[in-house]
Amino acid sequence: MKIIVDAMGGDIAFAPQIEGSVRAAGELGVQIVLVGDEQTISRHLDRLGYKGNDIAIVHASDVITNDDEPAKAVRSKKDASIVVAANLLKNGEGDALVSAGATGGVLAAGLLIVGRINGVARPALAPIIPTDKGPALLLDAGANADCKPENLLQFGIMGSVYAANVLGKENPRVAVVNIGGEAHKGNTLVKEAYALLAAAPVNFCGNIEGREIPMGEADVIVCDGFVGNVILKLTEGLAQTLLGNIKAIFKKNIFTMLAAAMCKGGFTEFKKKMDYTEYGGALLLGAKHPVIKAHGSSNAKAVYSAIRQAKRFIEMDVVEKIETDIARMEGIGSVTES
Amino acid sequence: MKIIVDAMGGDIAFAPQIEGSVRAAGELGVQIVLVGDEQTISRHLDRLGYKGNDIAIVHASDVITNDDEPAKAVRSKKDASIVVAANLLKNGEGDALVSAGATGGVLAAGLLIVGRINGVARPALAPIIPTDKGPALLLDAGANADCKPENLLQFGIMGSVYAANVLGKENPRVAVVNIGGEAHKGNTLVKEAYALLAAAPVNFCGNIEGREIPMGEADVIVCDGFVGNVILKLTEGLAQTLLGNIKAIFKKNIFTMLAAAMCKGGFTEFKKKMDYTEYGGALLLGAKHPVIKAHGSSNAKAVYSAIRQAKRFIEMDVVEKIETDIARMEGIGSVTES
Repeated sequence: MKIIVDAMGGDIAFAPQIEGSVRAAGELGVQIVLVGDEQTISRHLDRLGYKGNDIAIVHASDVITNDDEPAKAVRSKKDASIVVAANLLKNGEGDALVSAGATGGVLAAGLLIVGRINGVARPALAPIIPTDKGPALLLDAGANADCKPENLLQFGIMGSVYAANVLGKENPRVAVVNIGGEAHKGNTLVKEAYALLAAAPVNFCGNIEGREIPMGEADVIVCDGFVGNVILKLTEGLAQTLLGNIKAIFKKNIFTMLAAAMCKGGFTEFKKKMDYTEYGGALLLGAKHPVIKAHGSSNAKAVYSAIRQAKRFIEMDVVEKIETDIARMEGIGSVTES
Repeated sequence: MKIIVDAMGGDIAFAPQIEGSVRAAGELGVQIVLVGDEQTISRHLDRLGYKGNDIAIVHASDVITNDDEPAKAVRSKKDASIVVAANLLKNGEGDALVSAGATGGVLAAGLLIVGRINGVARPALAPIIPTDKGPALLLDAGANADCKPENLLQFGIMGSVYAANVLGKENPRVAVVNIGGEAHKGNTLVKEAYALLAAAPVNFCGNIEGREIPMGEADVIVCDGFVGNVILKLTEGLAQTLLGNIKAIFKKNIFTMLAAAMCKGGFTEFKKKMDYTEYGGALLLGAKHPVIKAHGSSNAKAVYSAIRQAKRFIEMDVVEKIETDIARMEGIGSVTES
């Protein structure tokens, strides 16, 4: 099994990607292809004292950043690491792709180069979000700002396959984000998606309201890419703001600092529960081969987790299972490419 | 000035509404009309030892709950407190309406009985949300699940008038919720709304992402009612989940309990900053007369705050100012009733 790792993307290029890869090669029994500036990579591998044969390097000199217009950049920057990596994946020179690069670039390379699973109209960006009852899958979190009901149906099916096979959720609870509990609530998109999901071969639990998401009331949270992106970023922003305020409370004086020390264990545990790096990255579910977007501020552990996640993705034949389930749904809804 | 208070709505009927009203009558120099079961209200007023002449009672025997289909209930339950209260407001027997009743009932009574300001296509539910930089207005938070760009334009204008006049924000920053910072980002609705708001006579600051909302990067946060409802409820749910986890950490053992005591002051201050009852209720902005929905779990203080808010709403001529600003925008966008 060979995992392609984009070594150039990410807030910090090279170091976390290479260190995560070395650890993965050692512990997971996978082969790694590191894509990026050859000299820099081999120098870093030397510095780490890596002597194995499980890591190959493919040279790429350019990078797609957040300032690029993604689709345009994928077409014009032929030597960008994510473009080279996606072409390797497409040509069968690797089984999965992990990148901590700009989200837009990873999505565009995934859609334009790697391509879609047969029958999937719109692949979705699917991050794993921490909830009070463990990790849940949120999709779409931003690949498709405008969606049709049939897209949401496919998100539910794809998410269900992933949650069952990779997250190990038995009979994963699929829910659609809505503004009330009843079937007749919500906007036109969600009402129609509700009917489609209710008839689909997934464990559909109906609507989930914003309030219930962090409480962990569903394993697969389905919504359009606009709503999902707001959910993802609001969750991050609010957690950051609340924890920032609490940190400030603890830093107030000598007594509060002592107090902080006294309950450090609990906070460490809590932080671990909320730590995205535990679960790896966001998937591009619906792509023809596994593509995983690790968090931009990924450390070596997050890259390692994403590689471990890619391995399980491949082992569990998630792509094939999605293709089968989507094909089985043909005729339910009218899924068309767009 | 006369404020109509629905005494029956809310998780706890009567007590908080009546106590909040008594306090408001005493401190704010307003007259109150309490709507609900006459016997219960006068008995409670007696128990509180109220002897003034500023509180009148109008009898209503029925109530609209969360289990009712709002529009239907407003039409059929003629004697529901919110229906009686809305009719009083419509007929000029009061200047504003405060209710802690079921949101659907308050919205339906506001739209169907009180009616809209001339030129306003869709009134919006506008709660005040706490942020790191003080209160901000979020609209629409659920009155309109499907919106047109012109609706979002009007939300921005109405919110700006309110924030300037009642929240005391100078030149309030208006932003539209989006999934990226650039003008070309987002779904069709938001892209078109962006162009309209950029041309409107408000201090439009462009897009706001989910992450920036709790940080207080805008005073008026504009979005459709679906997205706004998700934002509102996710914020509540996440705050509850995070604070619940922190409470559990503090309750772990004798040391952590001591730690909690040691930083109690900071947490009390923080709680106050995040306390919605400080700011009153959610407005139905665009209704012909001020309608304020107090939180369902409102205590006497929240009801009092909502009455104070209603008073300022009236004093500052917010309805008239909205009408003027909306009229000035005629021709920009094609606002039609729907």
